[in-house]
Amino acid sequence: MSESNQKLEQEFLEYVKKISAFEEALSLVYWDLRTGAPEKGTTQRSEVIGTLSGEIFKMKVSEEMAAFIAGLWLEKDGLSDVTRRSLEECKKEYDLNKKIPAAEYEAYTKLVAQAENVWTTARATNDYALFEPYLEKIIASKRQFIEYWGYKENPYDTLLDQYEPGMTVAILDDVFAKLRESILVLRQRVEAAKHQPDPTLLHKRVSKEHQKAFSMRILAKMGFDFAAGRLDDTVHPFATGLNTGDVRITTRYDEDNFKMAVFGIIHEGGHAIYEQNISPKLIGTPLSNGASMGIHESQSLFYEIILGSSFAFWQSNYKDFQEITAPAFDDVSVEEFYRAVNISESSLIRIEADTLTYPLHIMIRYELEKAIMNGEIGVADLRDAWNDKYEAYLGVRPGNDADGILQDIHWSGGDFGYFPSYALGYMYAAQLFATMSKEIPNVSEILASDDYTVIREWLTKNVHQFGMLKKPLAILQDTTGEGLNPEYLIQLLNDRYDFIYKLNEV
Amino acid sequence: MSESNQKLEQEFLEYVKKISAFEEALSLVYWDLRTGAPEKGTTQRSEVIGTLSGEIFKMKVSEEMAAFIAGLWLEKDGLSDVTRRSLEECKKEYDLNKKIPAAEYEAYTKLVAQAENVWTTARATNDYALFEPYLEKIIASKRQFIEYWGYKENPYDTLLDQYEPGMTVAILDDVFAKLRESILVLRQRVEAAKHQPDPTLLHKRVSKEHQKAFSMRILAKMGFDFAAGRLDDTVHPFATGLNTGDVRITTRYDEDNFKMAVFGIIHEGGHAIYEQNISPKLIGTPLSNGASMGIHESQSLFYEIILGSSFAFWQSNYKDFQEITAPAFDDVSVEEFYRAVNISESSLIRIEADTLTYPLHIMIRYELEKAIMNGEIGVADLRDAWNDKYEAYLGVRPGNDADGILQDIHWSGGDFGYFPSYALGYMYAAQLFATMSKEIPNVSEILASDDYTVIREWLTKNVHQFGMLKKPLAILQDTTGEGLNPEYLIQLLNDRYDFIYKLNEV
Repeated sequence: MSESNQKLEQEFLEYVKKISAFEEALSLVYWDLRTGAPEKGTTQRSEVIGTLSGEIFKMKVSEEMAAFIAGLWLEKDGLSDVTRRSLEECKKEYDLNKKIPAAEYEAYTKLVAQAENVWTTARATNDYALFEPYLEKIIASKRQFIEYWGYKENPYDTLLDQYEPGMTVAILDDVFAKLRESILVLRQRVEAAKHQPDPTLLHKRVSKEHQKAFSMRILAKMGFDFAAGRLDDTVHPFATGLNTGDVRITTRYDEDNFKMAVFGIIHEGGHAIYEQNISPKLIGTPLSNGASMGIHESQSLFYEIILGSSFAFWQSNYKDFQEITAPAFDDVSVEEFYRAVNISESSLIRIEADTLTYPLHIMIRYELEKAIMNGEIGVADLRDAWNDKYEAYLGVRPGNDADGILQDIHWSGGDFGYFPSYALGYMYAAQLFATMSKEIPNVSEILASDDYTVIREWLTKNVHQFGMLKKPLAILQDTTGEGLNPEYLIQLLNDRYDFIYKLNEV
Repeated sequence: MSESNQKLEQEFLEYVKKISAFEEALSLVYWDLRTGAPEKGTTQRSEVIGTLSGEIFKMKVSEEMAAFIAGLWLEKDGLSDVTRRSLEECKKEYDLNKKIPAAEYEAYTKLVAQAENVWTTARATNDYALFEPYLEKIIASKRQFIEYWGYKENPYDTLLDQYEPGMTVAILDDVFAKLRESILVLRQRVEAAKHQPDPTLLHKRVSKEHQKAFSMRILAKMGFDFAAGRLDDTVHPFATGLNTGDVRITTRYDEDNFKMAVFGIIHEGGHAIYEQNISPKLIGTPLSNGASMGIHESQSLFYEIILGSSFAFWQSNYKDFQEITAPAFDDVSVEEFYRAVNISESSLIRIEADTLTYPLHIMIRYELEKAIMNGEIGVADLRDAWNDKYEAYLGVRPGNDADGILQDIHWSGGDFGYFPSYALGYMYAAQLFATMSKEIPNVSEILASDDYTVIREWLTKNVHQFGMLKKPLAILQDTTGEGLNPEYLIQLLNDRYDFIYKLNEV
């Protein structure tokens, strides 16, 4: 590479480092707003958000950025891995924004800002008619944008790729069909099962302090580094990585529903452990993030579903739980407890769904998004299609739109293509676990032990360290030796619910 | 004003609003670092600080700023008060930076960054010789800068003006002489007093929870708005106004010394109440801050010394304190308690000094700073001069430099001219209180009551609301009808210590 281009590479790295610094400041502002910022300061704080976001956006689509891309792109194979992948990510974002005429992009930005407010009101008042015209405009804009951005096989692929690089309708149609069929069969068997778990156990009162005390022990065992993170209270739980040495998680406690915080903390802890273990060499670049939404979710779900919802895990941790919450669970056996926390039940609300039904909620959204982006159905038919699919897949039909098509914020923000990531997370997690089980033969003994270090290290070696240096499907292929395969999740669900519902006992 | 200048005024206000937004983000980063940011994230966080500070500095000395000043300065009397004063503040800061040749300024910035590190080591190892050469260079730079900045009567005036606009050696020499003489006489009487308070009461154990419970009640009574602020733990207590709707204070608890947190919270609460009550019309301008260091300190000291250290205050609040800390103070009368918390004793360390001796610590620093900036003594003589003055004013001589000339961080950061603000705060507070007592005749009944609203409102009307719209001496003149007058503080100290040490009883 020429000397002038070496200088340009250096300048490019300085430039993205500055963007990262602004992004870290912005993340702190959001964390603070959600964990206890005084109410009266929030109006002025939104000026701060506007200024920082504006600065970040300006830098990402600036003429300087264009010059970096123009100057380095043709020689990119001669760059270091980190610079090359950073450049690719910057170009992807630059193109996403720049391919849309500026006036249309600005109009769209205003539209979604309004639409999110309208959606909030519409959901609160159960008034879909209020939201529908906004949804129609957002969909029209997105379909127009897909024309600007371009696509190969399926228009919806372009949206999928923004959240899950490399993911396509061709792949998802196939894996979702297999997964759906298996889940529907298993759901029928579960519903008909003679040995139903006792749901009343889930509502025994557990104080916030006791929930927190137990969860902190689990977090530490999982490998969450408290010198590189913290746990706070919030209304809507989340994990946020300010940098790899400062990854914060939050939770909400309900004293009549301990599951929410206990499993919520394990889930967010999984996200956090991912970010705490991204390679330090990626700090200050756009790559110091999870590889994709789906891979990120695979890590939170690995800890929540594979580890935290396994019988082995509770065999070793239930005694602690009983002691901390004593005497509430004194007369509940570990098996009764375990079966109760894994109850599966059809429901209308995605975010309250259990492991077995959750993927069905996602598939409904996937199918509707795909159809609408391909022009196969119109907005006018969307609500009926939603309700019909809930009836077909889950056997329940929304009695109102707040519990139906209005339940998720995503579409009001234009986030089409995002939902599949959640279901991908389940499949990735199960597939990674299958490989882990081969490479660590005694893995179920480790799940039942007091030390999960081997598991955390395996995930770091194969997933965490790479950040966005590797693309999601490359992580899967390199680690498991194959592409996305739903069979691992199907097998895991069958084994688990056989045990929980004693499906083989009469 | 011409139409093009109206446009320029608008652009100027947008420009300073953006600076304010960056400053608010930076303040949040600092607050977070001091209240619980995970340790491993701090290295990367300093990149964020560097980026935000760099951006702020760049904007304050940019060609755009120069163009605003050039375009608006001559017509400034036609501008609104807010724009005019904002422009004056921006010009002041622009000139401070721009009058120094860029290379010299950069060298100085590096020098103080190094010097602060060296000072930390020097103080920890009690090694003044290590720090002295840095101090010498900083002083040489400051004296050179004064030449660039210019001065009228006394070179040191230029430094005073940076912290306390309008303050001069001519004023301070006079008021400090009067104050010093009165304090020295009073100190002699206190030392010789037959009725000494019982210092052991100060070290009764009070749990953190009890200290906090009591302090939260006092804060609420003072008028601290918890919807526009919060209280957190820290190592070095401070108050920080992110914006007027979000003013945060912090404290440190010592269970064997309740005075630290209880009076510390009242003190920081006074700073916070000031910032919470700055007029909303100043938000987003450089004026949404305290008028000066001295006026800011006058508000914290008003609450700490005038209100919180008055006998009337404890007459009404001691019962609460006794109940919360029961049974520790069951057998201590309010008078015994009050006398103990107001013990006066000569000491070597400024930040541990009591109300009566504190101004002496400040005068020592003032006299040394003035002498060294005027070339009347050299750095080589500074340590001996320090020790001699402590012996002369306080009757104690430092046994080592860590307890002497190395105790304060200020000089290592080049902050000459800052110390007098602390003593000014005492005098401003007493002078304001004298006027308040005339305008609110029953003020001592209010101090002994459960509702201080009238006091808070008086301070807001006369001081808080103006932010930096009025200069410090104008606030004093407009409110009290006279310039700085030390007699009010002298009278207050005499009355108070007469009572505490029963100086009129034999």
